Amino acid sequence: MNGKTAHHASPAAAHRVVIVGAGFGGLNAAEKLASAPVKITVIDRKNYHTFQPLLYQVATAGLSPGEIAAPIRSILRHHANVEVLMAEVTGFDLERRVVKTEDQEVPYDSLIVAAGASHAYFGHEEWEPFAPGLKTIEDAIEIRRRVLLAFELAERRAAAGEGNDPLNFVVVGAGPTGVELAGTLAEICRHALAKDFRMIDPSRARIHLLEGGAHVLPAYPEDLSRSAVKQLRRLGVDVATSTMVTKIEPGVIYAGETRMDAAVILWAAGVAASPLGKKLGVPTDRAGRVLVAADLSIPKHPEVFVIGDLAALKDASGNLLPGVAPVAILEGRYVAKLIRSEIHAVAAAGVNSTSLVQSAPRKAFHYHDKGSLATIGRAAAIAQFGRIHISGFLAWLAWLFVHILFLIGFRNRVLVFIQWAWSYFTYERSARLITGGTDLPGWSNAPTVNSSDSPPDKKSLP
Amino acid sequence: MNGKTAHHASPAAAHRVVIVGAGFGGLNAAEKLASAPVKITVIDRKNYHTFQPLLYQVATAGLSPGEIAAPIRSILRHHANVEVLMAEVTGFDLERRVVKTEDQEVPYDSLIVAAGASHAYFGHEEWEPFAPGLKTIEDAIEIRRRVLLAFELAERRAAAGEGNDPLNFVVVGAGPTGVELAGTLAEICRHALAKDFRMIDPSRARIHLLEGGAHVLPAYPEDLSRSAVKQLRRLGVDVATSTMVTKIEPGVIYAGETRMDAAVILWAAGVAASPLGKKLGVPTDRAGRVLVAADLSIPKHPEVFVIGDLAALKDASGNLLPGVAPVAILEGRYVAKLIRSEIHAVAAAGVNSTSLVQSAPRKAFHYHDKGSLATIGRAAAIAQFGRIHISGFLAWLAWLFVHILFLIGFRNRVLVFIQWAWSYFTYERSARLITGGTDLPGWSNAPTVNSSDSPPDKKSLP
Repeated sequence: MNGKTAHHASPAAAHRVVIVGAGFGGLNAAEKLASAPVKITVIDRKNYHTFQPLLYQVATAGLSPGEIAAPIRSILRHHANVEVLMAEVTGFDLERRVVKTEDQEVPYDSLIVAAGASHAYFGHEEWEPFAPGLKTIEDAIEIRRRVLLAFELAERRAAAGEGNDPLNFVVVGAGPTGVELAGTLAEICRHALAKDFRMIDPSRARIHLLEGGAHVLPAYPEDLSRSAVKQLRRLGVDVATSTMVTKIEPGVIYAGETRMDAAVILWAAGVAASPLGKKLGVPTDRAGRVLVAADLSIPKHPEVFVIGDLAALKDASGNLLPGVAPVAILEGRYVAKLIRSEIHAVAAAGVNSTSLVQSAPRKAFHYHDKGSLATIGRAAAIAQFGRIHISGFLAWLAWLFVHILFLIGFRNRVLVFIQWAWSYFTYERSARLITGGTDLPGWSNAPTVNSSDSPPDKKSLP
Repeated sequence: MNGKTAHHASPAAAHRVVIVGAGFGGLNAAEKLASAPVKITVIDRKNYHTFQPLLYQVATAGLSPGEIAAPIRSILRHHANVEVLMAEVTGFDLERRVVKTEDQEVPYDSLIVAAGASHAYFGHEEWEPFAPGLKTIEDAIEIRRRVLLAFELAERRAAAGEGNDPLNFVVVGAGPTGVELAGTLAEICRHALAKDFRMIDPSRARIHLLEGGAHVLPAYPEDLSRSAVKQLRRLGVDVATSTMVTKIEPGVIYAGETRMDAAVILWAAGVAASPLGKKLGVPTDRAGRVLVAADLSIPKHPEVFVIGDLAALKDASGNLLPGVAPVAILEGRYVAKLIRSEIHAVAAAGVNSTSLVQSAPRKAFHYHDKGSLATIGRAAAIAQFGRIHISGFLAWLAWLFVHILFLIGFRNRVLVFIQWAWSYFTYERSARLITGGTDLPGWSNAPTVNSSDSPPDKKSLP
């Protein structure tokens, strides 16, 4: 063992667990394992955990990034045997049992890979700059920037006497994220921004939600899907299903023959698992998810587990478990429990080994779906609890309750609640900041004018 | 008048006031003028007003950007005769009475230029990338990123067995901003971050405050300046006065012969007025401030006023008015009042003119200093109210009270107060996010290691 890794072995030669990714799965595994006689290293490329279910609120200026993100170190601070490394994992050596980062190797006895997923463009990565997706805080800030900037530029054009057409906002993909974005954008236009402009009328803006499939929120039963469409239309969203996007250019989107100018295009259509899945060198599905065994381990490596959005596991009825927080949380806890018991077995056997020993065959992971919720907008949502289907205000209350309850970090919970109470009664959006540049794809921010100070080709403010 | 500008003249040919800059001066001028029979256009390159006195709290992860920024449109929403343009002003044509932006010309009858100031490097602009200053929200986010990232990289180095020297943070300039930054950084290292790392000990970090002059907070009486030094040292800040910075390189700072490695270098040493001052084509001082008349107007143009940090005006005793919010606020109100009275005179005279008419010689602007406060850190500050000098907790309470009181936007005020109460009792920092890249000047984020995945020259995470 070389100097780089010496510190990772504690004198007692404790069982070393490395967790890659501090999302819901990774954090829950760490919390559940922390009280065991193990040494845990959590590796994440970010220094904070992102509460992904509320990302759309940051993208739509309702919450500040700091309100849905908590430093990983603070969350795990009180566990002396947990160490956090902010680093990019570059690969694995399953034989030598080390995780590789760009500046060191971290050895493990058991490995939990919870690297999550990102958005996919189905082989059209060239669309990304014109139609950003929403998976990270940075994505959310960029979307917020584009949406707010579009109105500012429209006001300027109108002020310059260069037309005053209503803005088109296009959201591609009617999964939970697409529906949240479309619904919330519609609200902002009709409320938060409505009275703030003199030249343009934000409430004339049109929100288009394009879905390639036949239904919005396809994961839900049809009656709830229909209700979601009703609620979206009531909010003023123009819903188009069975509509395949064929091309995206700066400020323009094509669906077959139809061409639409769009002030902002947002992408919520596809998900791709983290590239780290492939780096494990085991079979993956088309989305890059690792085909795990019933105990969430990978072939030939009972000490390596994959959980959360990166894992592909089917339930009893053969459906893939959804990529949602509850699944990741339960998988993280399951793996933690499994590791604890097998370490215990080792200790009991008095063997001096840091490897897992399966005293008994492992019990398969079983996911019991407690129900699912999707929010659409202010007092608009759908919820399914087994056979019970709810829509509208009640579903929204349930959604609100669940999400504030699970917000990691008490402080955030309180502040987010205050923010929401405030927004609910005033219709205000609290975080309307345009940061990081003032150029927008498809917009010339400098309409030609014969002023020596403004070259017509200028695309962005200095 | 061409199409571009047609809309700016309202049918009633109301007096048109253009305000450049929505800082304290510009906003107060707009608010005070809004009820007059005028048409106001506020032009700012940002869509939000920044509460500059609390920028250092964002830079040190205590507050989120959204908590010290409010959309200019929301602030002025209720004044139907006020229009806001988010645009970069490129110049002026004082003869034709138009303000030039990169895409249009905005005509005025009276003009208020309140474009503020930025930081200056005394002809060493090449230092900026290695020693950022603190004037905008973007600056604050960048400083926060560097400070938090430095600890993450240090932890990684230690984990890789590559040394564990305490970090040096260097703040250049001991004016109010430099003192706030140094004091707050010292606190964070000793409290918020102290328990979050396993390899390094943040409380061993050293904060150096370098001041070229003989005193910290030179604008204050010597007894308060001495008290500030005492309070800084108690917080653990290493204060060096009469120390001139001679050179700054990535991660290294030179003061004469002495050379210091620095994890992060922050610049709080100099102020330069907005370049818009020079574009008015009238005399300015060495810092680029416009030499205004006693009525804050410029030579030969009684209809053009310069206020706030961009204006150079001496008080009775010949001292330049300080570049602080209270001065800008009072100047803004003074000019608003002056314009109102001269429009009134026009109306009274029954003249059909949109120009100002000076019925009587203008009363000079007089600044009555109600006192000044500088904060140093937790329960540490100094305050001067005339002959009364206060230090420590009491001064800090006064500072807290004044600043929360003047925070624009009630919502922000409440949230900021909650944040502060929370931080005060828990020592937590609420906004510890590293966003926007993971490279740091002077750091190789990838210590050489023989791993095929990490080219030694790589400077930042993918």
